[in-house]
Amino acid sequence: MRVAVLGLGLIGGSVALAARDRADGVTVAGFDPDPAALAGALAGGAVDEACDSPAAALEGAAICFLCAPVTVLPALLAETLAAAPADCVVTDVGSTKLGIVRATDDERFVGGHPIAGSEAAGIEHARADLFEGAPWYLTPGTRSSGVLYERLYRLISDFGARPSAIDAETHDRMLAKVSHLPHVVANILVAQAGEGGDTLPRVGPSFRDATRVAGANSGIWTGIYTTNAEAIADEVEAAAARLSDFAGLLRAGDAAAIESWNESAREDRRRLLEADLEGGVLHELHVSVPNQPGIVAQVALALGKGGVNIVDMALAPAPDNRSGSITLWIAGDDPAAKARELIGQLGFPVLEPS
Amino acid sequence: MRVAVLGLGLIGGSVALAARDRADGVTVAGFDPDPAALAGALAGGAVDEACDSPAAALEGAAICFLCAPVTVLPALLAETLAAAPADCVVTDVGSTKLGIVRATDDERFVGGHPIAGSEAAGIEHARADLFEGAPWYLTPGTRSSGVLYERLYRLISDFGARPSAIDAETHDRMLAKVSHLPHVVANILVAQAGEGGDTLPRVGPSFRDATRVAGANSGIWTGIYTTNAEAIADEVEAAAARLSDFAGLLRAGDAAAIESWNESAREDRRRLLEADLEGGVLHELHVSVPNQPGIVAQVALALGKGGVNIVDMALAPAPDNRSGSITLWIAGDDPAAKARELIGQLGFPVLEPS
Repeated sequence: MRVAVLGLGLIGGSVALAARDRADGVTVAGFDPDPAALAGALAGGAVDEACDSPAAALEGAAICFLCAPVTVLPALLAETLAAAPADCVVTDVGSTKLGIVRATDDERFVGGHPIAGSEAAGIEHARADLFEGAPWYLTPGTRSSGVLYERLYRLISDFGARPSAIDAETHDRMLAKVSHLPHVVANILVAQAGEGGDTLPRVGPSFRDATRVAGANSGIWTGIYTTNAEAIADEVEAAAARLSDFAGLLRAGDAAAIESWNESAREDRRRLLEADLEGGVLHELHVSVPNQPGIVAQVALALGKGGVNIVDMALAPAPDNRSGSITLWIAGDDPAAKARELIGQLGFPVLEPS
Repeated sequence: MRVAVLGLGLIGGSVALAARDRADGVTVAGFDPDPAALAGALAGGAVDEACDSPAAALEGAAICFLCAPVTVLPALLAETLAAAPADCVVTDVGSTKLGIVRATDDERFVGGHPIAGSEAAGIEHARADLFEGAPWYLTPGTRSSGVLYERLYRLISDFGARPSAIDAETHDRMLAKVSHLPHVVANILVAQAGEGGDTLPRVGPSFRDATRVAGANSGIWTGIYTTNAEAIADEVEAAAARLSDFAGLLRAGDAAAIESWNESAREDRRRLLEADLEGGVLHELHVSVPNQPGIVAQVALALGKGGVNIVDMALAPAPDNRSGSITLWIAGDDPAAKARELIGQLGFPVLEPS
């Protein structure tokens, strides 16, 4: 089976590597408008054949992946559908889905969105195992062919990903809530903190965590914001309304309501992380450590050797800093107990708040 | 010199330990309404003397630290000023300052706020080095005695902290912006994502980072929200207005304005982190790593051994492991170059975005 990959960055390169390494009898034909990326893909073993046009890569292809920025996808999709064989399934990997799904009624197209890789970019970071265990949303249109959908589904499963079907609008609204809105909020927080001019405030660890994605890659994110504008605007306005409501609680000085609001948030975050994990109840461990370099590594290493998976980690008050308190989130009662035991063996006190 | 510490949790216990270990000729008298905390402080060597009342601890004291929740402080301050010797400087460690500074005109009082320790609580996590390198704000009132201020300043410097004076209102407004607002926003994000009922969305790493402090300890945070309500409400409303403005950009489909807004945020975050560090230009390194346990530890360990300080770290797309990309922030050109070299020796590709 011939697989065409159009666009050989981190995601396209990883799709190509995964297709060659993890599926039987697949050859990969790749194209990228950047000759260096194309040469890198060939040299790195991501593609069997480096093609000089999308049409050349599509010749005889059974599956085609469009791995380009979301703003480029509609034109690339039209070009691809014009050139692709009649029984070739065409999919994309864009972060927003409604626009591209609405762009065609062709039965060969099934939208897709793997949840993997965002920070590092470029073919040199591509890996065959990038999608191992990763959610991979598929958004078939009403006319998408069942046979073609199933072929795509099987290949993505071979990659080690967890494909699941979702309608494009639900996908975009969900991502607006849990991914796009947090990016907007991070940008707002840094803009507001940075407005003071020359005398910038000292920022703490909660600020650093909350703004880690501020100013994420404009090449990707402007496309996400513009192609999912309505859903994101709805979420942004809902968040603005919630903020205004909370400002009202503050000005009213309603301590009981503020405490109850805060407790609800604690419970909401726990529910959300647990739902995401399928790993059992989430435990939050606070570890006090001495003020020495290498301690974070020591703790992470001990848990890694002991087979305990760290779901999330925060260094408090600050990793640059001189004072060492590590918060670890561990899923499941047994792994959490094991973590407490391993950290205890290192001689560090562990506190699990009630 | 006798130092009284009223309240022996994480901060009070650490103040006591630092005073005994790091200053010459100091004896510490401690009080806590919880007998277990008091006994723990005595057993752990935090206090020379465990007292059964604030007044007993204050007898002959030259400096007194009030280490209680912010809502308790006004009453405790009044009691302390009534019992303290005439030349005893009295300070607190509360996270908000305007309320307590306004509560008294006594020349013996100087407000304080060390930026250290927030996640772990309790005397068992107290450490003599908790304040090493940490900012410690001091908010003297207009009537505060210069001699007493200087005595307090010297002891805090002995702790290894970096004391700096700031007026209480500026302090509270700054903290509202860089600490209290991010906490409010985290709560809003989880509430909004959690509102769907039983079918909770899958949350990504940006969501996890942005909401790490959601539902922080209500015992501490309700007090912060209520004692700094006006300043926080102002910041919350300003953020709501910014969100509404951005929703307008989205609905107008203004891609150029959206991109420019995003680029400004990138620059704002860089400026803020650099201003905080005094360590030179901040470098952002993306490291691609294989999908194996222990890799984060390996990288952290290599940098620690090489003397490279990690300012901030993010695991992407997810620390729970399916795919490994690590983003590191390193301050200074030389440390960043060293980091690239050390990580290169481990065989992992490093990308520094322009």
